[in-house]
Amino acid sequence: MEKLEQLYEGKGKKLYKTSDSKLVISEFKDDLTAFNAKKRGSESGKGALNCKISSEIFKLLEKNGIKTHYVETLDDNLMLCKLVEIIPIEVVVRNIATGSLSKRLGIKEGEVLPFTLVEFYYKDDSLGDPIINDEHALILKCVSSLEVLDKLREIGRKVNDVLRPFFDSKNLNLIDFKLEFGMCDGEILLADEITPDSCRFWDKDTNEKLDKDRFRQDLGNVKMAYEEVLKRILG
Amino acid sequence: MEKLEQLYEGKGKKLYKTSDSKLVISEFKDDLTAFNAKKRGSESGKGALNCKISSEIFKLLEKNGIKTHYVETLDDNLMLCKLVEIIPIEVVVRNIATGSLSKRLGIKEGEVLPFTLVEFYYKDDSLGDPIINDEHALILKCVSSLEVLDKLREIGRKVNDVLRPFFDSKNLNLIDFKLEFGMCDGEILLADEITPDSCRFWDKDTNEKLDKDRFRQDLGNVKMAYEEVLKRILG
Repeated sequence: MEKLEQLYEGKGKKLYKTSDSKLVISEFKDDLTAFNAKKRGSESGKGALNCKISSEIFKLLEKNGIKTHYVETLDDNLMLCKLVEIIPIEVVVRNIATGSLSKRLGIKEGEVLPFTLVEFYYKDDSLGDPIINDEHALILKCVSSLEVLDKLREIGRKVNDVLRPFFDSKNLNLIDFKLEFGMCDGEILLADEITPDSCRFWDKDTNEKLDKDRFRQDLGNVKMAYEEVLKRILG
Repeated sequence: MEKLEQLYEGKGKKLYKTSDSKLVISEFKDDLTAFNAKKRGSESGKGALNCKISSEIFKLLEKNGIKTHYVETLDDNLMLCKLVEIIPIEVVVRNIATGSLSKRLGIKEGEVLPFTLVEFYYKDDSLGDPIINDEHALILKCVSSLEVLDKLREIGRKVNDVLRPFFDSKNLNLIDFKLEFGMCDGEILLADEITPDSCRFWDKDTNEKLDKDRFRQDLGNVKMAYEEVLKRILG
C-alpha cells in the first residue's frame, strides 16, 4: 500500500489517501509540541518509535475486544488505518492527579484518584481544547446524543482496564492518557495514537517520567524515554 | 429577630447568627466584584436593592414549589434565612450564549442555545471557580452521589422554567444565572441570592444590559439598572 495525496497534517501526524478509499496511511512525525503548540521541538526517530508503540498497543487492545482504526504497520513510521470521521472530543482518562487536573482543581500532584476519571475536551486548537461537559458536547454538535458520550466513557475505562495492568507488568505506572475516536460505518473506533505523546508513564520504582512531560518540563532524554517505553512493551 | 455574631463574610453578603440556631440573617452588601474579585467597586444602596429583588424572586419560586432558604425580609438589606450547609458548586443555567461560555467555546454572543444548558463550577475563589464535570464533583467531595448532581440540574431547569416567562412578562430576557444550593435537614434548598449580581437580564426591545455586566464592562448606571429590574419585578 502506497501513500497517495495528503489528506491532513496535524501536530503529530500526516494522513495520506491510499488506493483503497476506506484506508489511509498515518505518518508519525518527529515533531513535538506542548501547551497548545506554544512550545515546539523535534526528536529524530520519535515518529518511528511512536508508530511502533502505538501499533503494539492497538494490537493489544484489539485482542481484548476494543475496536480500533489500526490495520497494520507498514514501515518505520507508517501505519495503515481505517478512514474514520474523527469525533472532535479528546477523551482524557486519569488514574493519578497531575498536570492540568492538579493545576485547575488543586488536587495534589501524584494523588491516586478514588476512581478512574474521564474528562472530555473540545478538540479545537484555536480555543486551546477547552474542557466541556456532556451538554456542551451536544450544543457544539460533537456527537448526536448523550448515549455516544456514555459509550466514549465506557470504552475509555475499558482501555484503562487493559492498559493499566499491562503497563504495570512492565514496571510502568499509567498515570493518564488521551484518546480520540472516529466513526466508521456507524461504528465508534478508537483512533489517533497511544504513545508517550498521549500518555503519562512513570517508572514504578523511581517515579521517573517516561513520556512527553520530559519535553514539556525540559527534563532531557526525551527519545531515550520513548525507547525505554518501547523496550518494556516488547520485553 | 436581631443580628448576633457574624458567621461569615463573602463577596456580596455577610451572614449573622440569630437567637434561633436554625436561622441566620443575610446582610446584602453594597460591594461589587467581578473577574474573581480582581475588579472591585461599590454602589451605595445596591445591597438593599438586591435584598428586595432576591426576596421577591424567592417568594415567587416558593409559590411555584421550589424550596429555598428564604424565610422573610427583615429590613432594607437584611434577609432572614434558614441555616444551610452550602454545596460548593455554582450551578450556572444558560438560555443564551454570552460571557465565559462564548469566550471558552467560541459560541457567538447572543446565540440562542438549542436547550437550557446547565454547568457546574467548583466554588473555590483561590482556584477561580473552575468548571467541573460530574466526576470531578465526586472526587472533590462536593456531593455524595451523582443523584444529587441530577437533582441540582433538575432544580436549575425548574427555576429557569419559572423565571424565564416571569421576566419575559416584564420585558426582560433572562440570559443566564448562577444558583447556589445548601443542605438543611437532609433537603436541598435553593440558597444564596437571585439578583442582577447573579443573573444577566437584557431589555427585550433594546438588548440593554440591566445587570452586573454594567459593572464588569464599565457601562455605567449600575444602580439605575438594578432599580429598573426591581421596578419591573414589582410592576
